[in-house]
Amino acid sequence: MNLLHEPHHDGSPTYLDQEAPVLGATVTVRLRTSAEDPVERVWVRTTYDAEPVFHPCTAVARDAHTTWWEGALPVRNPVTHYRFLLADADGQQRWLTAAGTVEHDLADALDFRVSAHEPPPDWGRDGVVYQVFPDRFARSAAADERETPAWAEPADWDDEVVFELSDPRTPLQLFGGDLDGVVEHLDHVAAVGATILYTTPVFPGESNHRYNASTFDGVEPLLGGDAAYERLARAVHARGWRLLGDLTTNHTGDTHEWFLAAVADPDAPTRSWYHFDADGGYECWMGFATLPKLNHADPGLRAAMVEGPDSIVARWLRPPYDVDGWRIDVANMTGRLGALDVNHEVARAVRRTAQAERPDALVIGEHNHDASGDLDGDGWHGTMNYSGFSWPVWSWLRAPDSPARAFGRPLPVPRRPGPLVQRTLREWLARYGWRAASTSWNILGSHDSARIRTVVQDPARHRVAAGLQFTLPGVPMVFAGDEIGLEGIVGEDSRRPMPWQHRERWDTATLAAYGALAAARREHVALRRGGLRWAHVDDDTLVFVREHPDGDVLIAARRAAGPAVRLPAGQLLGAAGRLDGAVVLATEGASTPLVREGEEVVVPAGDGASLTGWRL
Amino acid sequence: MNLLHEPHHDGSPTYLDQEAPVLGATVTVRLRTSAEDPVERVWVRTTYDAEPVFHPCTAVARDAHTTWWEGALPVRNPVTHYRFLLADADGQQRWLTAAGTVEHDLADALDFRVSAHEPPPDWGRDGVVYQVFPDRFARSAAADERETPAWAEPADWDDEVVFELSDPRTPLQLFGGDLDGVVEHLDHVAAVGATILYTTPVFPGESNHRYNASTFDGVEPLLGGDAAYERLARAVHARGWRLLGDLTTNHTGDTHEWFLAAVADPDAPTRSWYHFDADGGYECWMGFATLPKLNHADPGLRAAMVEGPDSIVARWLRPPYDVDGWRIDVANMTGRLGALDVNHEVARAVRRTAQAERPDALVIGEHNHDASGDLDGDGWHGTMNYSGFSWPVWSWLRAPDSPARAFGRPLPVPRRPGPLVQRTLREWLARYGWRAASTSWNILGSHDSARIRTVVQDPARHRVAAGLQFTLPGVPMVFAGDEIGLEGIVGEDSRRPMPWQHRERWDTATLAAYGALAAARREHVALRRGGLRWAHVDDDTLVFVREHPDGDVLIAARRAAGPAVRLPAGQLLGAAGRLDGAVVLATEGASTPLVREGEEVVVPAGDGASLTGWRL
Repeated sequence: MNLLHEPHHDGSPTYLDQEAPVLGATVTVRLRTSAEDPVERVWVRTTYDAEPVFHPCTAVARDAHTTWWEGALPVRNPVTHYRFLLADADGQQRWLTAAGTVEHDLADALDFRVSAHEPPPDWGRDGVVYQVFPDRFARSAAADERETPAWAEPADWDDEVVFELSDPRTPLQLFGGDLDGVVEHLDHVAAVGATILYTTPVFPGESNHRYNASTFDGVEPLLGGDAAYERLARAVHARGWRLLGDLTTNHTGDTHEWFLAAVADPDAPTRSWYHFDADGGYECWMGFATLPKLNHADPGLRAAMVEGPDSIVARWLRPPYDVDGWRIDVANMTGRLGALDVNHEVARAVRRTAQAERPDALVIGEHNHDASGDLDGDGWHGTMNYSGFSWPVWSWLRAPDSPARAFGRPLPVPRRPGPLVQRTLREWLARYGWRAASTSWNILGSHDSARIRTVVQDPARHRVAAGLQFTLPGVPMVFAGDEIGLEGIVGEDSRRPMPWQHRERWDTATLAAYGALAAARREHVALRRGGLRWAHVDDDTLVFVREHPDGDVLIAARRAAGPAVRLPAGQLLGAAGRLDGAVVLATEGASTPLVREGEEVVVPAGDGASLTGWRL
Repeated sequence: MNLLHEPHHDGSPTYLDQEAPVLGATVTVRLRTSAEDPVERVWVRTTYDAEPVFHPCTAVARDAHTTWWEGALPVRNPVTHYRFLLADADGQQRWLTAAGTVEHDLADALDFRVSAHEPPPDWGRDGVVYQVFPDRFARSAAADERETPAWAEPADWDDEVVFELSDPRTPLQLFGGDLDGVVEHLDHVAAVGATILYTTPVFPGESNHRYNASTFDGVEPLLGGDAAYERLARAVHARGWRLLGDLTTNHTGDTHEWFLAAVADPDAPTRSWYHFDADGGYECWMGFATLPKLNHADPGLRAAMVEGPDSIVARWLRPPYDVDGWRIDVANMTGRLGALDVNHEVARAVRRTAQAERPDALVIGEHNHDASGDLDGDGWHGTMNYSGFSWPVWSWLRAPDSPARAFGRPLPVPRRPGPLVQRTLREWLARYGWRAASTSWNILGSHDSARIRTVVQDPARHRVAAGLQFTLPGVPMVFAGDEIGLEGIVGEDSRRPMPWQHRERWDTATLAAYGALAAARREHVALRRGGLRWAHVDDDTLVFVREHPDGDVLIAARRAAGPAVRLPAGQLLGAAGRLDGAVVLATEGASTPLVREGEEVVVPAGDGASLTGWRL
């Protein structure tokens, strides 16, 4: 299905002259329609304070293939939404929304959006994130000298990971990775092409994941304490990279100093920081008594945790920790409980507080579901994009017999054909808005999910997945170990130690693929900032163009053998008028790149018999 | 296209055991699937404080045609959204959303919703609204003795209405209708079957529409003043009916006492009730200097207008005015300006204040666009449903050569086929949520739009439109004059005086149709409270069932000739197991009702040559 004839607009520089306008500015929106499409008149429709307003667009350029239209869009509200009305000569009307064209009058949920809030920092959009789970990444020599605490079940680095939630050892099994271990392996992070190091929590806590913090003051001694964190921050920054912390704003551990004080004394100042009832019962995360929920309606908690220079959020942005921003754990539930909902206030406070310390701070909120109501504003810059990236990619590439378990749903993601996958990608991008979607993290999995290799069951399909991770809009976040083909059928299983001593087990072809994809992303601004225009979709093939004024890049991804895909070259070209590169992601062995045959660009046929990487 | 095999759920009593649960309750959700549909497992998915949670459903009844499933849904948040996951034996997964089934993983925007906020008053859901534009409805003898004010252009009752906005006479032409005129014609309102009288503003104001109020204290003397309003309220209530006022919360007239005081003295207490800039300029409605915008961020304005027993909102709910609630004009823009958005606070205040005076008060917010973010909460009970009712019905029934002008868009609503119309109706119902949608007003037009008769250009098609108005979920609101076939190509033209002295011009067949439709709505609870299940859709035919435990009603509507539609009787029946009635709305002359032929219910073929009403 050739989609190049479809009208197109997105929030990228090719189509919107200002990515970060101020409130009250007027931006120029551009739209392309195909010469085969009998569009006669175009309006951009927005609302002023919720009242619909239409502004006519003008055809400003026309060639044999394409008409370019322009319109003026006043940025009337902090998040201004808009869509296009396309009228044919015969009176037919269509809407162009961020999820494509529709022929009926639909609600605004899929409108384009432009935000007058401050944009995310450049480094947060242009970088590649590498996620480290400290207990499992690497162990420095110093680790051998630390005593195992009473709560822990010590494990040797080569031991099997215990991962069933029914097994009490699962959160207690301690492999002893530490922060100096991370410092020692930054060259490996560089080989993946990452520039942003994100570690899961380093606060003291009585579990291997440390999401049940005992305090937010300081670093777990088993990880090397504050001094080790300072060494890590210095080493990361010395490379010109960035460092992200991981903070759970929704709850603490039941061993947290705030909670212990609250339990010990109903008059303790921290009592109202939690949701205690009259009988001493308390709200907790999804019913787990070890994870008492924080009450962000309480000004004392707000000040301690998220508001002002003495808050946890602020203090960690200063030395010795010196993080450049936060990944906020359970951001979706934070400040929400029954009739209470101060989530956006907390998100705003986190961002405001972080930016007061460091103007280019980044805040990413975890949301494994639908973050559309929580993004594009003045809170989280983006999210961990499970819904809009991970699940559609999994559903396209998963092996029918994959043992990967579901995350957040009662059944595994089903295998689905290209058109449904493309529709999913497109709709979530629309719901999140261009800015927030392209700042969100393209993840193939995390410490909370199965590993991509286990999902797809094949190195070549794995590399196709990685290719999508680095070429679709969004910021790639690589969970340490994915790049060498580690497996895991569920989040806890995916937390396998990095086999530094067993290089023979590494999938070095895939590691090289990650590095090359990161290099391509660095080289082509279109892969970082370009728009997303779909070119062709069939069950087994996704072809799209990342468009940018400095040159477009074509991406063709295949999950199985398929015939050649012939694309009309004239329609393919964006405003730049040239293809700056092409990436072919395929599971087949063809080494032929894209070819140009007369007026067509051809994605070669593939037999799906063997595997390759990509071609640039 | 037979749609009866589709899985179905909605928010009506057949499918949800509590329409108005309290927060923390667990409701039972019911779902039906067809025997032809290989659904093997079903979950209801909701979120707890934004975290997805799945609850399994159980098959509780099964016959040759239908499987009924039940699940338990905790009402965890004030507005709890949910959808169903349907899994086949072969691992295929679909979602059932409020807009139907989809095969990809979509965002929550189209989820079902159940609200733990207090429900709207019964009378506001079960009644029929009649809208009166006082200057044009009826003139009592007393009107002859009133002096024409200086601003007005007096007109005789039979004069042509001046309606072009470019003509300065348009808002000034005064026909002299008054409130005693309304009292004198309540028998006519009864003939239409209405039980709720809603008048556009009666505040003093220097225009015939009086949306530019000079004061909110008292009734325009030209309408008869406070005494006449008191007579109207008594007469309406004596019939057991309800009375609604019309209040613009977004702006006042520039002749308003608050505004004049603010202009005269920058230190006046009301200065901050508007949005003045340093130079004395001020914000106004869509750039009209005569309509200065109110500033609801100001506590003084809030108290004066919407908050507490001394506010305008409250005082009018007490004698002598004694209104039962409000239609809020320009509700969509109220409290919104650029970065300011206190709209929901104002909506909540209006409802809270009105209910403090009268626990069963109703508040309906005007929104000619997308009200989905503003409904289903603790603010407006419903909206004037242009987007979810008027435009889709217009687009199905409009005459290709209709001179009706657009309202709120640059092109007239295009003529569209049944499937697009049904999709539009369904998606808006989903976006507004069952409760708010079924409380919102089904309008075929208003004083702000063209008349339905002018849109459809045919008495029979007009009656089909009226039939949809009374049989689709929502509360019918009849703009006075529609019922006798008045015309108007644009809102101002639609404000033609009621031709009481020219009964020969009345379309009495259509008037009778309105009365009979209202009677059918009174008789069948399914038409007031029943669900909406689509049975069949083709370009020219819409067939649906309103399902209720006390009996279902089938509705078949045709816009043109078509073949017989044969529906499987077994799939047609709801939980009640019986059809309690049927309404056929058609433009053709057939007098045959629905017939049952063996296992089928048949909507007879129609030739579209002539016209009829409906059959019960």
